[in-house]
Amino acid sequence: MNAENIRFASRFDGISGSAIREIFKLLAVPGMISFAGGNPSVDALPDAQCAEIARELLLDKGKILLQYGATEGYAPLRESLVPYLKDRFSFTCRADEVLPVTGSTQAMDLLCKALIDPGDKVVVENPTFLGNMQAIRLYQAQLLPVDSDEDGIKVDELEEVFKSEHPKMLYIIPTFQNPTGRTLSLERRKKIAQLAAQYGVVVAEDDPYRDLRYAGQELPSIKSFDAEGWVAFMGSFSKVISPGLRVGFLAANAALLRKCVIGKQSSDVHTANLNQAIVDAYLRRGLLMPHVERICQSYAQQMNTMLGLLSKCGGVARYTRPQGGLFIFAELQEGMDAAKLLMNCVDKGVAYVPGTHFYAGGGHENTFRLNFSMSTIEQIERGMALLNEVFSANS
Amino acid sequence: MNAENIRFASRFDGISGSAIREIFKLLAVPGMISFAGGNPSVDALPDAQCAEIARELLLDKGKILLQYGATEGYAPLRESLVPYLKDRFSFTCRADEVLPVTGSTQAMDLLCKALIDPGDKVVVENPTFLGNMQAIRLYQAQLLPVDSDEDGIKVDELEEVFKSEHPKMLYIIPTFQNPTGRTLSLERRKKIAQLAAQYGVVVAEDDPYRDLRYAGQELPSIKSFDAEGWVAFMGSFSKVISPGLRVGFLAANAALLRKCVIGKQSSDVHTANLNQAIVDAYLRRGLLMPHVERICQSYAQQMNTMLGLLSKCGGVARYTRPQGGLFIFAELQEGMDAAKLLMNCVDKGVAYVPGTHFYAGGGHENTFRLNFSMSTIEQIERGMALLNEVFSANS
Repeated sequence: MNAENIRFASRFDGISGSAIREIFKLLAVPGMISFAGGNPSVDALPDAQCAEIARELLLDKGKILLQYGATEGYAPLRESLVPYLKDRFSFTCRADEVLPVTGSTQAMDLLCKALIDPGDKVVVENPTFLGNMQAIRLYQAQLLPVDSDEDGIKVDELEEVFKSEHPKMLYIIPTFQNPTGRTLSLERRKKIAQLAAQYGVVVAEDDPYRDLRYAGQELPSIKSFDAEGWVAFMGSFSKVISPGLRVGFLAANAALLRKCVIGKQSSDVHTANLNQAIVDAYLRRGLLMPHVERICQSYAQQMNTMLGLLSKCGGVARYTRPQGGLFIFAELQEGMDAAKLLMNCVDKGVAYVPGTHFYAGGGHENTFRLNFSMSTIEQIERGMALLNEVFSANS
Repeated sequence: MNAENIRFASRFDGISGSAIREIFKLLAVPGMISFAGGNPSVDALPDAQCAEIARELLLDKGKILLQYGATEGYAPLRESLVPYLKDRFSFTCRADEVLPVTGSTQAMDLLCKALIDPGDKVVVENPTFLGNMQAIRLYQAQLLPVDSDEDGIKVDELEEVFKSEHPKMLYIIPTFQNPTGRTLSLERRKKIAQLAAQYGVVVAEDDPYRDLRYAGQELPSIKSFDAEGWVAFMGSFSKVISPGLRVGFLAANAALLRKCVIGKQSSDVHTANLNQAIVDAYLRRGLLMPHVERICQSYAQQMNTMLGLLSKCGGVARYTRPQGGLFIFAELQEGMDAAKLLMNCVDKGVAYVPGTHFYAGGGHENTFRLNFSMSTIEQIERGMALLNEVFSANS
């Protein structure tokens, strides 16, 4: 019998892989200006520093780092995460309430593994990060999208959905959201923590962009208002040190974290020790925040350049004005189709991600997401001029 | 509402976490001689070499290694795996038919994700590696254990089960099996490849110990006899370079591998680039096999010392005589209980893993697994003397 007869699991029905990662394959053309990704700038990756840290750690503790580690994580990192969480995310937890993971993508996977049976309902922002929508769909949950405005997800609608649909989980990116760049207001953060406990819904709070702030005041995390333990907080070092190292963390109440640890035993046993130790060194030696400050100076210029040019771009009806993060979300005039126009833009030498992919129910064909972190000021100027050409000609 | 009211997913019903990893927590007592683990010897971990390789790679290619990578894996590693697979595992595949993963545990998870719906049947050796039994159980499959003898799994029984039960998958460790140390015979390897294609069953071939051979002749992999693409081959660098780096690989037919890639997008996006590049350097620079030869010299002495002392150990009825790997499996006299006696042994200062955990249906309380790689010759002599004391007194 030929292996074409393999019977795949039903969780893959209707799943075709990340649309974004497929778009990336179009971008291998030399000279292409990509506003499509969500990668850190190459300048933001501390290669020389990591080289010395990695060598030093392996010479000093190589016999520990190269051996099997605990599923629960590298103990020094768990300890150094506690003050980091207190300082940066304004909530307190014990070292055994935080789990280092293989990128915060794994935190999402483990939360779904712990919580989701097929047919369970998960509320997501509309629009939201499509990678984690795929993660949720692979657990065969039903996605319930709730619209957002300039202050983030609409909490009145959210409460209605909590009340009538009894979802298991809310997935939310409160700060410089992907794809919109919007930040959830303080009042709504408090309200969501309260609604979670009132209706018994786990909040998966995904906050990887918080440290990339270029304007405005920091806000406390939703988890900082969580008295009852319903908020699971997912963090990442991908945007502030390196995505290639694959280190993030999950902070949650002990019972939920225990299920995630058991799930992780069968996912990858533990996150690579060397990678955890490198992140631990950034935290312990006080290297992280100075590095972040350097990155932010440049990202702020890139974002402001792009925002300035968007205001003059033909065909663009409106766009968000983030205070940080990596993304701007824009709308073309009614009737224009960003997915179709992408091919014209790619032919000219510039790319973005059509917004429709970020909506659980599709539609919104006139929207698109722009990233500015991977392009120089010159590339942003050139790329925006090309977008202006294509959009003006089609508006 | 207190978070004690969280409703967990039904896949966790009856799952309590790895019994072995819980036993390890008992072993933190200083001076404890552990025959319980499956870790490489500390002497086998190339810390100084890895330190220089890591530094060099980060200085040379840090901007690539610290950036996001492809879910499909670090391209140079995929390329260097092709001749490695041909040379060591005697099968040919293209670079795009092999997927670097975050330890071969992730390969198992991705195969289950791709294939298993709740209620599907998976055949396992009886006994087998309990970590992967847990992985399969978390996908809510039904385990069908098939007994082994000195030549590995009994293929006549296997064919009966394939015919009558229509399983989706067979999980098998053909070389120096965990926990028995046994090696599947050449004839049975051929037969299993043939049965897989005849009955349409995916074979998950898990072969992490093959390079740790201390006697006898190498055998080709089951996959080398797989004409139709039903065999998915899982390999690991945990036993020959470092478990802490978490790098393994999965080789499978293109359609199955594609599902695994999509599954991996939501598991951890990609395996950490630096870790893949370190393994790639071992393969490209010809560092791996000389390192393995060094390890094997020492492991062979350790195994032979333990085997010699087992022959004189009170209460021991029989035991396997592996030609390699990390484990010996032994049976106490009928009526003795290795799980109960473990506590007496731990009190004396020596530990093993009770064999019952490796049987899908439990039972076999008189069996136990011994590991020799983590102990010096002196520790093996001392530990075996302590086992002899306890077992003699209770036989």
